[in-house]
Amino acid sequence: MEVKVLKDILGANEQIAERNRQLLGSNNVFAVNLMSSPGAGKTSLILATIKRLKGKTKIGVIEGDVSSSLDAEMVGKEGVPVVQINTGGACHLDANMISNALGNMPLQDIELLLIENVGNLICPASFALGEHRKVIISSVPEGDDKPFKYPLMFHIADVVLINKTDLSPYLKFDTEAFSQAIKRINAKIEIFQISCATGQGIQQWVSWLLTQMSFLRGTKRIF
Amino acid sequence: MEVKVLKDILGANEQIAERNRQLLGSNNVFAVNLMSSPGAGKTSLILATIKRLKGKTKIGVIEGDVSSSLDAEMVGKEGVPVVQINTGGACHLDANMISNALGNMPLQDIELLLIENVGNLICPASFALGEHRKVIISSVPEGDDKPFKYPLMFHIADVVLINKTDLSPYLKFDTEAFSQAIKRINAKIEIFQISCATGQGIQQWVSWLLTQMSFLRGTKRIF
Repeated sequence: MEVKVLKDILGANEQIAERNRQLLGSNNVFAVNLMSSPGAGKTSLILATIKRLKGKTKIGVIEGDVSSSLDAEMVGKEGVPVVQINTGGACHLDANMISNALGNMPLQDIELLLIENVGNLICPASFALGEHRKVIISSVPEGDDKPFKYPLMFHIADVVLINKTDLSPYLKFDTEAFSQAIKRINAKIEIFQISCATGQGIQQWVSWLLTQMSFLRGTKRIF
Repeated sequence: MEVKVLKDILGANEQIAERNRQLLGSNNVFAVNLMSSPGAGKTSLILATIKRLKGKTKIGVIEGDVSSSLDAEMVGKEGVPVVQINTGGACHLDANMISNALGNMPLQDIELLLIENVGNLICPASFALGEHRKVIISSVPEGDDKPFKYPLMFHIADVVLINKTDLSPYLKFDTEAFSQAIKRINAKIEIFQISCATGQGIQQWVSWLLTQMSFLRGTKRIF
Protein backbone atom coordinates (compact mmCIF):
# COMPACT_ATOMS: atom_id res chain seq x y z
CA MET A 1 0.00 0.00 0.00
CA GLU A 2 2.70 2.47 0.98
CA VAL A 3 4.82 1.39 -1.97
CA LYS A 4 1.87 2.06 -4.26
CA VAL A 5 1.51 5.57 -2.92
CA LEU A 6 5.22 6.15 -3.42
CA LYS A 7 4.98 4.93 -7.01
CA ASP A 8 2.18 7.37 -7.69
CA ILE A 9 4.23 10.23 -6.27
CA LEU A 10 7.23 9.29 -8.35
CA GLY A 11 5.07 8.81 -11.45
CA ALA A 12 3.55 12.27 -11.05
CA ASN A 13 6.99 13.72 -10.42
CA GLU A 14 8.32 12.07 -13.58
CA GLN A 15 5.57 13.64 -15.67
CA ILE A 16 6.30 17.13 -14.36
CA ALA A 17 10.04 16.51 -14.82
CA GLU A 18 9.42 15.65 -18.47
CA ARG A 19 7.46 18.88 -18.93
CA ASN A 20 10.36 20.80 -17.35
CA ARG A 21 12.78 19.08 -19.73
CA GLN A 22 10.65 20.08 -22.72
CA LEU A 23 10.40 23.67 -21.52
CA LEU A 24 14.17 23.82 -21.02
CA GLY A 25 14.79 22.21 -24.42
CA SER A 26 12.47 24.61 -26.25
CA ASN A 27 14.52 27.46 -24.74
CA ASN A 28 17.87 25.82 -25.54
CA VAL A 29 18.72 25.60 -21.84
CA PHE A 30 20.90 22.73 -20.64
CA ALA A 31 20.21 21.79 -17.01
CA VAL A 32 22.43 20.07 -14.46
CA ASN A 33 21.28 18.70 -11.09
CA LEU A 34 24.08 19.05 -8.51
CA MET A 35 23.79 16.68 -5.55
CA SER A 36 26.02 16.02 -2.53
CA SER A 37 26.26 15.73 1.24
CA PRO A 38 25.95 18.98 3.16
CA GLY A 39 29.10 21.04 2.76
CA ALA A 40 30.75 18.98 0.01
CA GLY A 41 31.06 22.04 -2.22
CA LYS A 42 27.98 22.49 -4.43
CA THR A 43 27.87 26.27 -4.05
CA SER A 44 31.66 26.55 -4.39
CA LEU A 45 31.46 24.56 -7.63
CA ILE A 46 28.70 26.83 -8.95
CA LEU A 47 30.78 29.92 -8.14
CA ALA A 48 33.89 28.42 -9.77
CA THR A 49 31.88 27.44 -12.86
CA ILE A 50 30.35 30.91 -13.21
CA LYS A 51 33.80 32.52 -12.96
CA ARG A 52 35.33 30.14 -15.52
CA LEU A 53 32.47 30.63 -18.04
CA LYS A 54 31.97 34.38 -17.58
CA GLY A 55 31.41 36.03 -20.97
CA LYS A 56 31.23 32.63 -22.70
CA THR A 57 28.11 30.90 -21.44
CA LYS A 58 25.01 32.49 -19.95
CA ILE A 59 24.26 30.78 -16.66
CA GLY A 60 21.22 30.70 -14.37
CA VAL A 61 21.10 29.09 -10.94
CA ILE A 62 18.37 27.49 -8.82
CA GLU A 63 19.35 27.08 -5.17
CA GLY A 64 17.60 24.42 -3.08
CA ASP A 65 17.78 24.47 0.72
CA VAL A 66 15.56 23.39 3.58
CA SER A 67 15.98 26.89 4.96
CA SER A 68 17.86 30.20 4.37
CA SER A 69 18.84 32.12 1.23
CA LEU A 70 22.58 32.32 1.98
CA ASP A 71 23.61 30.48 -1.18
CA ALA A 72 21.33 32.48 -3.48
CA GLU A 73 22.72 35.72 -2.06
CA MET A 74 26.30 34.55 -2.64
CA VAL A 75 25.57 33.42 -6.20
CA GLY A 76 23.53 36.56 -6.96
CA LYS A 77 26.64 38.69 -6.33
CA GLU A 78 28.16 37.10 -9.43
CA GLY A 79 25.51 38.83 -11.53
CA VAL A 80 23.63 35.75 -12.72
CA PRO A 81 19.87 35.17 -12.38
CA VAL A 82 19.19 33.03 -9.31
CA VAL A 83 16.05 31.61 -7.71
CA GLN A 84 16.11 30.23 -4.15
CA ILE A 85 13.77 27.36 -3.28
CA ASN A 86 13.20 26.73 0.43
CA THR A 87 11.72 23.27 0.84
CA GLY A 88 10.48 23.98 4.40
CA GLY A 89 11.32 20.55 5.70
CA ALA A 90 11.56 18.44 2.57
CA CYS A 91 14.83 16.59 2.11
CA HIS A 92 15.07 17.00 -1.68
CA LEU A 93 13.94 19.16 -4.59
CA ASP A 94 11.18 17.78 -6.78
CA ALA A 95 10.01 18.51 -10.33
CA ASN A 96 7.10 20.68 -9.19
CA MET A 97 9.41 22.97 -7.20
CA ILE A 98 11.60 23.30 -10.29
CA SER A 99 8.55 24.00 -12.46
CA ASN A 100 7.67 26.93 -10.19
CA ALA A 101 11.26 28.16 -10.17
CA LEU A 102 11.48 28.02 -13.97
CA GLY A 103 8.53 30.41 -14.09
CA ASN A 104 10.76 32.92 -12.29
CA MET A 105 13.87 32.32 -14.41
CA PRO A 106 14.55 34.29 -17.65
CA LEU A 107 14.97 31.13 -19.74
CA GLN A 108 15.46 33.01 -23.01
CA ASP A 109 18.52 34.72 -21.50
CA ILE A 110 20.37 31.63 -20.26
CA GLU A 111 22.05 28.60 -21.83
CA LEU A 112 23.10 26.63 -18.77
CA LEU A 113 20.99 26.08 -15.65
CA LEU A 114 22.80 24.84 -12.54
CA ILE A 115 20.40 23.40 -9.96
CA GLU A 116 21.81 22.98 -6.47
CA ASN A 117 19.79 20.27 -4.74
CA VAL A 118 19.33 19.96 -0.96
CA GLY A 119 22.45 18.62 0.77
CA ASN A 120 21.57 14.92 1.12
CA LEU A 121 22.98 11.74 -0.44
CA ILE A 122 19.72 9.78 -0.24
CA CYS A 123 16.38 11.39 -1.11
CA PRO A 124 17.40 13.56 -4.11
CA ALA A 125 18.43 10.39 -5.98
CA SER A 126 14.77 9.36 -6.34
CA PHE A 127 13.37 12.60 -7.78
CA ALA A 128 13.98 13.65 -11.39
CA LEU A 129 13.78 17.40 -11.89
CA GLY A 130 13.85 17.59 -15.69
CA GLU A 131 17.63 17.93 -15.73
CA HIS A 132 19.85 16.69 -18.57
CA ARG A 133 22.71 15.51 -16.40
CA LYS A 134 23.06 14.46 -12.77
CA VAL A 135 26.28 15.36 -10.96
CA ILE A 136 27.47 14.17 -7.54
CA ILE A 137 30.06 16.12 -5.64
CA SER A 138 31.91 13.92 -3.18
CA SER A 139 34.63 15.40 -1.01
CA VAL A 140 37.86 13.99 0.36
CA PRO A 141 37.00 14.65 4.05
CA GLU A 142 33.82 12.54 3.75
CA GLY A 143 35.88 9.40 3.23
CA ASP A 144 36.08 6.84 0.45
CA ASP A 145 33.30 4.51 1.69
CA LYS A 146 30.34 6.54 0.47
CA PRO A 147 29.57 4.46 -2.67
CA PHE A 148 28.91 1.44 -0.44
CA LYS A 149 26.60 3.39 1.85
CA TYR A 150 24.66 5.45 -0.69
CA PRO A 151 24.69 3.24 -3.81
CA LEU A 152 21.55 4.62 -5.48
CA MET A 153 23.02 8.11 -5.72
CA PHE A 154 26.10 6.78 -7.52
CA HIS A 155 23.93 4.48 -9.68
CA ILE A 156 21.90 7.34 -11.17
CA ALA A 157 24.66 9.92 -11.64
CA ASP A 158 26.48 10.80 -14.86
CA VAL A 159 29.58 12.21 -13.25
CA VAL A 160 31.25 12.30 -9.84
CA LEU A 161 33.49 15.18 -8.85
CA ILE A 162 35.89 14.41 -6.01
CA ASN A 163 36.24 17.84 -4.42
CA LYS A 164 38.66 19.24 -1.80
CA THR A 165 41.67 17.37 -3.17
CA ASP A 166 43.78 20.14 -1.56
CA LEU A 167 43.03 18.40 1.78
CA SER A 168 44.35 15.02 0.55
CA PRO A 169 47.74 15.39 2.27
CA TYR A 170 46.01 15.49 5.66
CA LEU A 171 43.48 12.68 5.19
CA LYS A 172 43.26 9.02 4.29
CA PHE A 173 41.25 8.86 1.07
CA ASP A 174 41.94 6.03 -1.36
CA THR A 175 40.97 7.57 -4.71
CA GLU A 176 41.60 4.31 -6.57
CA ALA A 177 39.38 2.26 -4.23
CA PHE A 178 36.71 4.97 -4.29
CA SER A 179 36.70 5.08 -8.10
CA GLN A 180 36.59 1.29 -8.41
CA ALA A 181 33.65 1.09 -5.99
CA ILE A 182 31.75 3.66 -8.06
CA LYS A 183 32.55 1.93 -11.36
CA ARG A 184 31.17 -1.34 -9.99
CA ILE A 185 27.85 0.43 -9.32
CA ASN A 186 27.86 2.43 -12.54
CA ALA A 187 30.36 1.50 -15.25
CA LYS A 188 29.55 4.52 -17.46
CA ILE A 189 30.10 7.17 -14.82
CA GLU A 190 32.88 9.72 -15.26
CA ILE A 191 35.07 10.80 -12.35
CA PHE A 192 37.09 13.98 -12.01
CA GLN A 193 39.23 15.21 -9.14
CA ILE A 194 38.78 18.87 -8.37
CA SER A 195 39.48 21.52 -5.76
CA CYS A 196 37.21 24.54 -5.73
CA ALA A 197 39.67 26.12 -3.27
CA THR A 198 42.73 25.92 -5.58
CA GLY A 199 41.02 25.61 -8.98
CA GLN A 200 42.52 22.19 -9.68
CA GLY A 201 40.45 20.24 -12.19
CA ILE A 202 37.86 22.98 -12.72
CA GLN A 203 38.87 23.42 -16.36
CA GLN A 204 38.39 19.68 -16.92
CA TRP A 205 34.92 19.83 -15.34
CA VAL A 206 33.93 22.87 -17.43
CA SER A 207 35.20 21.18 -20.61
CA TRP A 208 33.07 18.14 -19.81
CA LEU A 209 30.08 20.40 -19.26
CA LEU A 210 30.56 22.26 -22.55
CA THR A 211 31.04 18.97 -24.42
CA GLN A 212 27.80 17.61 -22.99
CA MET A 213 26.01 20.79 -23.99
CA SER A 214 27.33 20.79 -27.55
CA PHE A 215 26.76 17.06 -27.94
CA LEU A 216 23.14 17.39 -26.97
CA ARG A 217 22.61 20.50 -29.06
CA GLY A 218 23.81 18.50 -32.05
CA THR A 219 21.11 15.85 -31.68
CA LYS A 220 17.73 16.20 -33.32
CA ARG A 221 16.04 16.70 -30.00
CA ILE A 222 17.92 19.72 -28.78
CA PHE A 223 18.92 18.13 -25.47
CA MET B 1 -4.59 15.32 4.09
CA GLU B 2 -0.90 14.56 3.56
CA VAL B 3 -0.02 16.39 6.76
CA LYS B 4 -2.53 14.23 8.61
CA VAL B 5 -0.88 11.05 7.35
CA LEU B 6 2.52 12.38 8.38
CA LYS B 7 1.19 13.16 11.85
CA ASP B 8 -0.11 9.63 12.20
CA ILE B 9 3.27 8.20 11.20
CA LEU B 10 5.09 10.41 13.67
CA GLY B 11 2.53 9.63 16.39
CA ALA B 12 2.96 5.88 15.91
CA ASN B 13 6.74 6.32 15.87
CA GLU B 14 6.58 8.30 19.12
CA GLN B 15 4.65 5.48 20.83
CA ILE B 16 7.22 2.86 19.80
CA ALA B 17 10.03 5.21 20.82
CA GLU B 18 8.49 5.51 24.28
CA ARG B 19 8.32 1.70 24.57
CA ASN B 20 12.00 1.52 23.54
CA ARG B 21 12.86 4.13 26.18
CA GLN B 22 11.06 2.08 28.85
CA LEU B 23 12.81 -1.13 27.77
CA LEU B 24 16.19 0.62 27.87
CA GLY B 25 15.43 2.18 31.25
CA SER B 26 14.31 -1.12 32.80
CA ASN B 27 17.69 -2.55 31.74
CA ASN B 28 19.63 0.49 33.00
CA VAL B 29 20.82 1.24 29.47
CA PHE B 30 21.49 4.87 28.51
CA ALA B 31 21.00 5.49 24.77
CA VAL B 32 22.45 8.19 22.54
CA ASN B 33 21.31 8.97 18.99
CA LEU B 34 24.29 10.15 16.90
CA MET B 35 23.37 12.18 13.83
CA SER B 36 25.41 13.97 11.17
CA SER B 37 26.07 14.50 7.49
CA PRO B 38 27.70 11.59 5.67
CA GLY B 39 31.35 11.36 6.63
CA ALA B 40 31.31 13.84 9.52
CA GLY B 41 32.74 11.22 11.88
CA LYS B 42 29.98 9.24 13.61
CA THR B 43 31.80 5.91 13.37
CA SER B 44 35.12 7.49 14.31
CA LEU B 45 33.48 9.00 17.40
CA ILE B 46 32.01 5.62 18.36
CA LEU B 47 35.45 3.98 18.02
CA ALA B 48 37.11 6.76 20.03
CA THR B 49 34.43 6.48 22.75
CA ILE B 50 34.77 2.70 23.00
CA LYS B 51 38.56 3.01 23.36
CA ARG B 52 38.30 5.71 26.03
CA LEU B 53 35.68 3.79 28.08
CA LYS B 54 37.17 0.31 27.71
CA GLY B 55 36.99 -1.57 31.03
CA LYS B 56 34.90 1.25 32.58
CA THR B 57 31.56 1.27 30.77
CA LYS B 58 29.91 -1.58 28.87
CA ILE B 59 28.94 -0.31 25.43
CA GLY B 60 26.64 -1.66 22.71
CA VAL B 61 26.29 -0.15 19.23
CA ILE B 62 23.50 -0.02 16.64
CA GLU B 63 24.71 0.98 13.18
CA GLY B 64 22.24 2.50 10.73
CA ASP B 65 23.00 2.71 7.02
CA VAL B 66 21.02 2.69 3.81
CA SER B 67 23.31 -0.10 2.65
CA SER B 68 26.46 -2.07 3.66
CA SER B 69 27.75 -3.39 7.00
CA LEU B 70 31.16 -1.70 6.84
CA ASP B 71 30.66 0.28 10.05
CA ALA B 72 29.33 -2.68 12.05
CA GLU B 73 32.34 -4.76 11.00
CA MET B 74 34.73 -2.01 12.07
CA VAL B 75 33.00 -1.52 15.43
CA GLY B 76 32.68 -5.30 16.00
CA LYS B 77 36.47 -5.58 15.93
CA GLU B 78 36.52 -3.58 19.17
CA GLY B 79 34.76 -6.49 20.89
CA VAL B 80 31.46 -4.77 21.65
CA PRO B 81 28.00 -6.10 20.70
CA VAL B 82 26.85 -4.45 17.48
CA VAL B 83 23.71 -4.69 15.35
CA GLN B 84 23.64 -3.32 11.80
CA ILE B 85 20.36 -1.94 10.45
CA ASN B 86 20.15 -1.53 6.68
CA THR B 87 17.25 0.79 5.90
CA GLY B 88 17.07 -0.28 2.25
CA GLY B 89 16.32 3.16 0.91
CA ALA B 90 15.00 4.97 3.95
CA CYS B 91 16.83 8.17 4.85
CA HIS B 92 16.65 7.77 8.65
CA LEU B 93 16.27 5.24 11.43
CA ASP B 94 12.88 4.98 13.11
CA ALA B 95 11.68 3.63 16.46
CA ASN B 96 10.43 0.36 14.97
CA MET B 97 13.86 -0.41 13.47
CA ILE B 98 15.42 0.24 16.87
CA SER B 99 12.79 -1.94 18.57
CA ASN B 100 13.84 -4.82 16.31
CA ALA B 101 17.52 -4.15 16.88
CA LEU B 102 17.04 -4.08 20.67
CA GLY B 103 15.68 -7.62 20.42
CA ASN B 104 19.10 -8.62 19.09
CA MET B 105 21.12 -6.66 21.64
CA PRO B 106 22.18 -8.17 25.03
CA LEU B 107 20.66 -5.30 27.03
CA GLN B 108 21.47 -6.84 30.41
CA ASP B 109 25.18 -6.77 29.46
CA ILE B 110 25.44 -3.12 28.41
CA GLU B 111 25.17 0.27 30.12
CA LEU B 112 25.56 2.63 27.17
CA LEU B 113 23.98 2.21 23.73
CA LEU B 114 25.42 4.29 20.91
CA ILE B 115 23.06 4.48 17.93
CA GLU B 116 24.61 5.69 14.67
CA ASN B 117 21.82 7.13 12.55
CA VAL B 118 21.86 7.32 8.73
CA GLY B 119 24.14 10.09 7.46
CA ASN B 120 21.64 12.88 6.83
CA LEU B 121 21.03 16.29 8.45
CA ILE B 122 17.31 16.40 7.66
CA CYS B 123 15.09 13.32 8.07
CA PRO B 124 16.58 11.81 11.28
CA ALA B 125 15.60 15.00 13.16
CA SER B 126 11.90 14.09 12.91
CA PHE B 127 12.06 10.53 14.24
CA ALA B 128 12.54 9.77 17.94
CA LEU B 129 14.13 6.38 18.56
CA GLY B 130 13.69 6.09 22.34
CA GLU B 131 17.09 7.66 22.97
CA HIS B 132 17.94 9.69 26.08
CA ARG B 133 20.15 12.21 24.32
CA LYS B 134 20.51 13.45 20.75
CA VAL B 135 23.99 14.33 19.50
CA ILE B 136 24.95 16.09 16.27
CA ILE B 137 28.43 15.75 14.88
CA SER B 138 29.32 18.67 12.65
CA SER B 139 32.71 18.80 10.99
CA VAL B 140 35.00 21.67 10.09
CA PRO B 141 35.17 20.84 6.34
CA GLU B 142 31.37 21.08 6.05
CA GLY B 143 31.51 24.81 6.76
CA ASP B 144 29.99 27.01 9.42
CA ASP B 145 26.68 27.75 7.67
CA LYS B 146 24.93 24.47 8.50
CA PRO B 147 22.76 25.76 11.40
CA PHE B 148 21.06 28.17 8.96
CA LYS B 149 20.39 25.43 6.44
CA TYR B 150 19.33 22.57 8.72
CA PRO B 151 17.81 24.39 11.71
CA LEU B 152 15.51 21.57 12.91
CA MET B 153 18.46 19.25 13.54
CA PHE B 154 20.16 21.83 15.74
CA HIS B 155 16.84 22.69 17.42
CA ILE B 156 16.26 19.14 18.69
CA ALA B 157 19.83 18.22 19.69
CA ASP B 158 21.30 18.22 23.20
CA VAL B 159 24.92 18.58 22.16
CA VAL B 160 26.92 19.46 19.05
CA LEU B 161 30.42 18.11 18.54
CA ILE B 162 32.53 20.08 16.09
CA ASN B 163 34.76 17.34 14.70
CA LYS B 164 37.92 17.42 12.55
CA THR B 165 39.38 20.45 14.30
CA ASP B 166 42.78 19.15 13.15
CA LEU B 167 41.82 20.43 9.68
CA SER B 168 41.09 23.97 10.95
CA PRO B 169 44.45 25.40 9.80
CA TYR B 170 43.55 24.57 6.19
CA LEU B 171 39.93 25.77 6.15
CA LYS B 172 37.81 28.82 6.86
CA PHE B 173 35.51 27.84 9.71
CA ASP B 174 34.32 30.53 12.10
CA THR B 175 33.74 28.58 15.33
CA GLU B 176 32.37 31.64 17.12
CA ALA B 177 29.83 32.43 14.39
CA PHE B 178 28.86 28.75 14.14
CA SER B 179 28.31 28.50 17.90
CA GLN B 180 26.31 31.72 18.03
CA ALA B 181 24.08 30.55 15.18
CA ILE B 182 23.37 27.30 17.03
CA LYS B 183 22.71 29.06 20.34
CA ARG B 184 20.14 31.30 18.64
CA ILE B 185 18.26 28.14 17.53
CA ASN B 186 18.75 26.27 20.79
CA ALA B 187 19.98 28.22 23.82
CA LYS B 188 20.43 25.10 25.99
CA ILE B 189 22.63 23.17 23.58
CA GLU B 190 26.19 22.30 24.56
CA ILE B 191 29.05 22.56 22.08
CA PHE B 192 32.42 20.78 22.18
CA GLN B 193 35.31 20.90 19.74
CA ILE B 194 36.85 17.51 19.05
CA SER B 195 39.16 15.67 16.69
CA CYS B 196 38.69 11.91 16.43
CA ALA B 197 41.96 11.87 14.46
CA THR B 198 44.11 13.44 17.20
CA GLY B 199 41.96 12.72 20.27
CA GLN B 200 41.48 16.41 21.06
CA GLY B 201 38.34 16.97 23.15
CA ILE B 202 37.38 13.29 23.38
CA GLN B 203 37.90 13.28 27.14
CA GLN B 204 35.58 16.26 27.47
CA TRP B 205 32.92 14.46 25.36
CA VAL B 206 33.23 11.27 27.39
CA SER B 207 33.00 13.21 30.65
CA TRP B 208 29.81 14.86 29.42
CA LEU B 209 28.44 11.44 28.49
CA LEU B 210 29.24 9.93 31.90
CA THR B 211 27.75 12.94 33.67
CA GLN B 212 24.53 12.60 31.70
CA MET B 213 24.39 8.91 32.55
CA SER B 214 24.98 9.41 36.27
CA PHE B 215 22.63 12.38 36.43
CA LEU B 216 19.82 10.36 34.93
CA ARG B 217 20.58 7.29 37.04
CA GLY B 218 20.15 9.53 40.07
CA THR B 219 16.59 10.49 39.20
CA LYS B 220 13.61 8.46 40.31
CA ARG B 221 12.94 7.30 36.78
CA ILE B 222 16.24 5.66 35.99
CA PHE B 223 16.82 7.69 32.82
